[in-house]
Amino acid sequence: FHVYQTEADCGRLLPSQSLLVLNSLPVCSPLPGVSSATPTEEMNGAGNLMDFLDEPFPDVGTYEDFHTIDWLREKSRDTDRHRKITSKSKESFWELIKSLLDAWSGWVVMLLIGLLSGTLAGVIDLAVDWMTDLKEGVCLSAFWYSHEQCCWTSNETTFDDRDKCPQWQKWAELMTGHAEGAGAYVLNYFLYVLWALLFSFLAVSLVRVFAPYACGSGIPEIKTILSGFIIRGYLGKWTLLIKTVTLVLAVSSGLSLGKEGPLVHVACCCGNLFCSLFSKYSKNEGKRREVLSAAAAAGVSVAFGAPIGGVLFSLEEVSYYFPLKTLWRSFFAALVAAFTLRSINPFGNSRLVLFYVEYHTPWYMAELVPFILLGVFGGLWGTLFIRANIAWCRRRKTTQLGKYPVLEVIAVTGITAVLAFPNPYTRRSTSELISELFNDCGALESSQLCDYINNPNMSRPVDDIPDRPAGPGVYNALWQLALALVFKIVITIFTFGMKIPSGLFIPSMAVGAIAGRIVGIAVEQMAYHHHDWIIFKNWCRPGADCVTPGLYAMVGAAACLGGVTRMTVSLVVIMFELTGGLEYIVPLMAAAVTSKWVADAFGKEGIYESHIQLNGYPYLDVRDEFTHRTLATDVMRPRRNDPPLAVLTQDTTTVEDVEALIKDTDYNGFPVVVSRESERLIGFVQRRDLTLAIKTARQKQDGVVSSSVVYFTEDAPQLPASNPQPLKLRRILNLSPFTVTDHTPMETVVDIFRKLGLRQCLVTRSGRLLGIITKKDVLRHMAQMMNQDPESIMFN
Amino acid sequence: FHVYQTEADCGRLLPSQSLLVLNSLPVCSPLPGVSSATPTEEMNGAGNLMDFLDEPFPDVGTYEDFHTIDWLREKSRDTDRHRKITSKSKESFWELIKSLLDAWSGWVVMLLIGLLSGTLAGVIDLAVDWMTDLKEGVCLSAFWYSHEQCCWTSNETTFDDRDKCPQWQKWAELMTGHAEGAGAYVLNYFLYVLWALLFSFLAVSLVRVFAPYACGSGIPEIKTILSGFIIRGYLGKWTLLIKTVTLVLAVSSGLSLGKEGPLVHVACCCGNLFCSLFSKYSKNEGKRREVLSAAAAAGVSVAFGAPIGGVLFSLEEVSYYFPLKTLWRSFFAALVAAFTLRSINPFGNSRLVLFYVEYHTPWYMAELVPFILLGVFGGLWGTLFIRANIAWCRRRKTTQLGKYPVLEVIAVTGITAVLAFPNPYTRRSTSELISELFNDCGALESSQLCDYINNPNMSRPVDDIPDRPAGPGVYNALWQLALALVFKIVITIFTFGMKIPSGLFIPSMAVGAIAGRIVGIAVEQMAYHHHDWIIFKNWCRPGADCVTPGLYAMVGAAACLGGVTRMTVSLVVIMFELTGGLEYIVPLMAAAVTSKWVADAFGKEGIYESHIQLNGYPYLDVRDEFTHRTLATDVMRPRRNDPPLAVLTQDTTTVEDVEALIKDTDYNGFPVVVSRESERLIGFVQRRDLTLAIKTARQKQDGVVSSSVVYFTEDAPQLPASNPQPLKLRRILNLSPFTVTDHTPMETVVDIFRKLGLRQCLVTRSGRLLGIITKKDVLRHMAQMMNQDPESIMFN
Repeated sequence: FHVYQTEADCGRLLPSQSLLVLNSLPVCSPLPGVSSATPTEEMNGAGNLMDFLDEPFPDVGTYEDFHTIDWLREKSRDTDRHRKITSKSKESFWELIKSLLDAWSGWVVMLLIGLLSGTLAGVIDLAVDWMTDLKEGVCLSAFWYSHEQCCWTSNETTFDDRDKCPQWQKWAELMTGHAEGAGAYVLNYFLYVLWALLFSFLAVSLVRVFAPYACGSGIPEIKTILSGFIIRGYLGKWTLLIKTVTLVLAVSSGLSLGKEGPLVHVACCCGNLFCSLFSKYSKNEGKRREVLSAAAAAGVSVAFGAPIGGVLFSLEEVSYYFPLKTLWRSFFAALVAAFTLRSINPFGNSRLVLFYVEYHTPWYMAELVPFILLGVFGGLWGTLFIRANIAWCRRRKTTQLGKYPVLEVIAVTGITAVLAFPNPYTRRSTSELISELFNDCGALESSQLCDYINNPNMSRPVDDIPDRPAGPGVYNALWQLALALVFKIVITIFTFGMKIPSGLFIPSMAVGAIAGRIVGIAVEQMAYHHHDWIIFKNWCRPGADCVTPGLYAMVGAAACLGGVTRMTVSLVVIMFELTGGLEYIVPLMAAAVTSKWVADAFGKEGIYESHIQLNGYPYLDVRDEFTHRTLATDVMRPRRNDPPLAVLTQDTTTVEDVEALIKDTDYNGFPVVVSRESERLIGFVQRRDLTLAIKTARQKQDGVVSSSVVYFTEDAPQLPASNPQPLKLRRILNLSPFTVTDHTPMETVVDIFRKLGLRQCLVTRSGRLLGIITKKDVLRHMAQMMNQDPESIMFN
Repeated sequence: FHVYQTEADCGRLLPSQSLLVLNSLPVCSPLPGVSSATPTEEMNGAGNLMDFLDEPFPDVGTYEDFHTIDWLREKSRDTDRHRKITSKSKESFWELIKSLLDAWSGWVVMLLIGLLSGTLAGVIDLAVDWMTDLKEGVCLSAFWYSHEQCCWTSNETTFDDRDKCPQWQKWAELMTGHAEGAGAYVLNYFLYVLWALLFSFLAVSLVRVFAPYACGSGIPEIKTILSGFIIRGYLGKWTLLIKTVTLVLAVSSGLSLGKEGPLVHVACCCGNLFCSLFSKYSKNEGKRREVLSAAAAAGVSVAFGAPIGGVLFSLEEVSYYFPLKTLWRSFFAALVAAFTLRSINPFGNSRLVLFYVEYHTPWYMAELVPFILLGVFGGLWGTLFIRANIAWCRRRKTTQLGKYPVLEVIAVTGITAVLAFPNPYTRRSTSELISELFNDCGALESSQLCDYINNPNMSRPVDDIPDRPAGPGVYNALWQLALALVFKIVITIFTFGMKIPSGLFIPSMAVGAIAGRIVGIAVEQMAYHHHDWIIFKNWCRPGADCVTPGLYAMVGAAACLGGVTRMTVSLVVIMFELTGGLEYIVPLMAAAVTSKWVADAFGKEGIYESHIQLNGYPYLDVRDEFTHRTLATDVMRPRRNDPPLAVLTQDTTTVEDVEALIKDTDYNGFPVVVSRESERLIGFVQRRDLTLAIKTARQKQDGVVSSSVVYFTEDAPQLPASNPQPLKLRRILNLSPFTVTDHTPMETVVDIFRKLGLRQCLVTRSGRLLGIITKKDVLRHMAQMMNQDPESIMFN
């Protein structure tokens, strides 16, 4: 029924037929069954009566791979565990210590996550730095130095040309002795491409062979996992190791991808790793997800050096169940991670943040117009990117393309490297590019972008330079940036989704930063040359420093990132943490709002939601508002003409019947009713628990045979003595299944599923069991309703 | 049954008997009723059939004062409204415009809230500034200038003595011509006390006469309102006006209270005001609460100049239902408010924040020890304050004291003013005091606290001053600060809860800041005099600037605020926004965590929750974890020995019976069953709706008499022709009441009540209606369980 083609599809699940790959749940064929009885008081799992099976069935209450967890049950189990520990803690001093350790384990896990993810981020940063430079040359004094480190340790660098020093040699110079000339250029070009191909080949091979789940950004899958889906191994140790290594290789290869998204995945792997230290987290899927939410915050925190932004990202973008306790712990984890990263100090500037910027001039009201235009650009780019990328990914899934992931990566790397080398703005790493674009031009800046014509008569402090006419270098840079923009836009569409770790934040920000910087320079030059125009007159007198092109680059980056991911608050807060001042929050906000509105007008889903949908994950988005007028009765199964619901009766079904039912159906659970006639519901039993219980009983319990009656009541039914011994299964029966009436509007049902994290919900009418609604049914119904609605746009 | 003594109790509700003032809900006496029938398909409220009453009953679906709203119903109504507008929008261009306006109204409301609350905060700041100084003297050049403004505009101020200028005259100088001497001192003293008494008398009289709800901080009530309770007038225009005016008076009177909490109330009043402009918000209690959550964020944003902190405060502390859409909008409102305040610029420094600080030296690991000690102090202060304040407030409620609120305010003001005047640290306004305590001593500082002995041989830049020995001024200041600390601790306990607007943030922060500064100076002097001690050796060489006492003050303030309010993330973020650097986030976090842990060890509730409990508001805290092993059946009513549940039958009850039931019981609603025998539930009808419907029917509909049968089925029951015309009430029947089984653990029930915002929940067993659980029952049960539990501490 479901075929998971994990290999061919970047570790993603490919549903063979249905739209949604979900744990399929009951809608059933009939079963023989008879009379009725009243259940008596006994709480599920409390089990204080002496029955045949005093020890609990092994594995009862766990989940299978690719199934949805039941949040209510997990929570209830954790409360039981907590109660047990609390009552035990009064018995002895040792138990008290144990209970205190248990209470503190959450903080310990957070501390460990922060330390490990901060360390890993630092190591990744250092390794990427070194390997990116390795494509161009090598440090003679110590080969493990990156270009910058090499020249920092050298004393022979001049102030004008800080990135040239004799210790650092380009490959051509090292091999032929000639640093300049066409031959050297071609040799450097060739080796650049060769290194890039080597890195990406290594990356894709490692992913293919050792950890297929290590590819992609991981955020769509983490969102799905946090919403309560089980994907075993997705956050495993092996994935952690391979993702860390291949992330370095992928980023170093010069492909148009970033490390930010994958860092979230890496941090979540750390979280999962440390969960296994404490049974509190390892044995409870709900508690585990609280830790993972915090880990996601730590991941963003180290990716950008923005702890508050990280927490808000986790809250806004990835998390599903985010209680206040988690907020506080996430913040702690994010801070520890950020400070660990800072003490490793990979950027060599004691700064926490990835792109530290400081601007010296305020912005003016009139500048909101170009900022909003950048927002529109960001929204359009977001829409274009999402549609094109999804279309390409769909093509990859459905055609021969998907069968040759290694070749695809090699090809894209080759094209990227060949096209990137000639342009200085694409040759360097994308984060360096963004950093340069964000920066304001100081007096000492040697970059081409800062080649302005200085007025020789003016001597001003370094910080406060008035607007100047652009020199030839700036015009040259503008051309190259325009080419880089087109290149980045196109290549990113094909890069995201390949079978290597690939983040989206950096490429999106690069596109926005390039566009922003171009607009910024244009506005600046206009203001300089036409300061008598009415729009400039009020705020830009000659000789003043009115326009900061770097700010435009930042606003553009925020707009594009917003358009692609639809982040809002977390985006603005991350950007705010980069600049460290509230001063520029209004431009950022204006661009982010515009970009979100423009992008939302073309389609509600961000890139992560689109990938979730493409891959058919059972994700119930908290943000989708369900506004249709359907009722529970329209969604529940069995539908009209279907066979009736497969139910168990409380004391008339035999072991054989149950086994036949399990064999004939693939539903995840079965409602238990008083009798087939009265259809009065008493509980719900999970398929997995039922299978395990019968298996255990058959092995361990004498007298249980195929014709034994399975009973869910408190007391065994009155049977003739000749009958085989009955099997009591009340212990695995959920006596508080969730029910709604058939008249409940679907919007309420959707709300209940979302807020309570249900797997299924039973539908009754005046006390009679009518049918069942599973999470899958809800998702399928929502998708149907969306397709019917002519206003909403689907990506087809 | 409930007596709301709003007058005598600071506008709060005083339950005469029960612990919890709640909308009481069904548990009922029997009713005659007969046979059964099956309901057919028809959604509640959809009403497309032609029945007797085609127009809807007026006011059906609204709530009475002091009742709880049903979040699910509100949400469902909003979806209906949205659907209607969307379908209409296709009809004409005008309808399309209207639907667009409707979609944008949320943003418009946010903009207006931001503008108005920013403006009000600015006006309050300016007025407080002026009136506080008015207690000491007056500006001769323009009486509406505050001391600072007066001397700023004057050219005759010297650099050394910036706060003295001839235009500003103290009262004694103005009246007698002598600025110095015992007589002048006494006269100034006398007038200071007189002004203080005048201001506080005006404040308390205005509150008493015009708006009893304007007193207190308002945050406990706003929390309760946001959780779904109706308190009419609490956020009204009148409250807004009076609270704004009296807040200025109360703060200016020099009482130990702050304006931060009341500003949240003021912002929420603004929110409520603008809600009334749009029927989308004014007619839907759920949507209105989304706006109020955002308004609370705007309130904190202007109180501290911390927009991100404001949003997190709203999320963490006050809000109940906080969807992502609200997060984004809150952020917008908070930003608009902050920028409005900045453009008014009440502090005259273009800074957004209340206390802007900049420190020049890092902190060292060893300093974490005093920071954690300050955390412990904060936690202890929090516990002491909460217990003492609650005990005092309980005494106020239960004794004669509560009957003389004006006298109480006058007395406390008198004591405060008399004790405050001699001490320079208590005479000035508390926020000025905090500001001075937070500040690092620069070279130019003229304050007593900065009276260090300079080394004459050293000339260093202004910012980087090494640790110096304390001069006599510092020792003098320490004494005065110690006295101020004791004074603030004692007087705040008696001030908070009086019948005037009073916030807690500033007094708590003042206590912490004083303690912190004292500790800071102690550590600094120890480090200076004993830099050979092992603990100082590693990080504090002679001549270095190791210890920043201002940072200790800030950490202490955070610790005390955390101990009282139990804020965590929002507290750290607010403090972070004050300093603007991540550098000091670790000390703040360490203190906040310690303070929360210490305070939590003595009692889980913060001051707001304690006041909510004291006043018996029906507030279901999201943070309380319910860990007891009770089941729904233990909580539901009717209890054993109670009369059976009062239910209506679907087609056998007469109008007379219904009226009798309404008269005899005070339950808020009644379940409707198929028949009294089968006890199978078909729906739930609200008391208010039932009363209104019968009233309307009796007036407008011919043939409806006392013996008319009320039916809730789709079709009228088969009755002899002689019978009077039956009354169809299916329209007001909720066909999707929420049900749980009797075996549902209470922790799940509590979770459902919290997450779905229910008013009541019906309990069934195998399809039969057994009883009902209301929010009141849940709260009462939780309180009972807490009392039984010997581990948890209650404030008695």
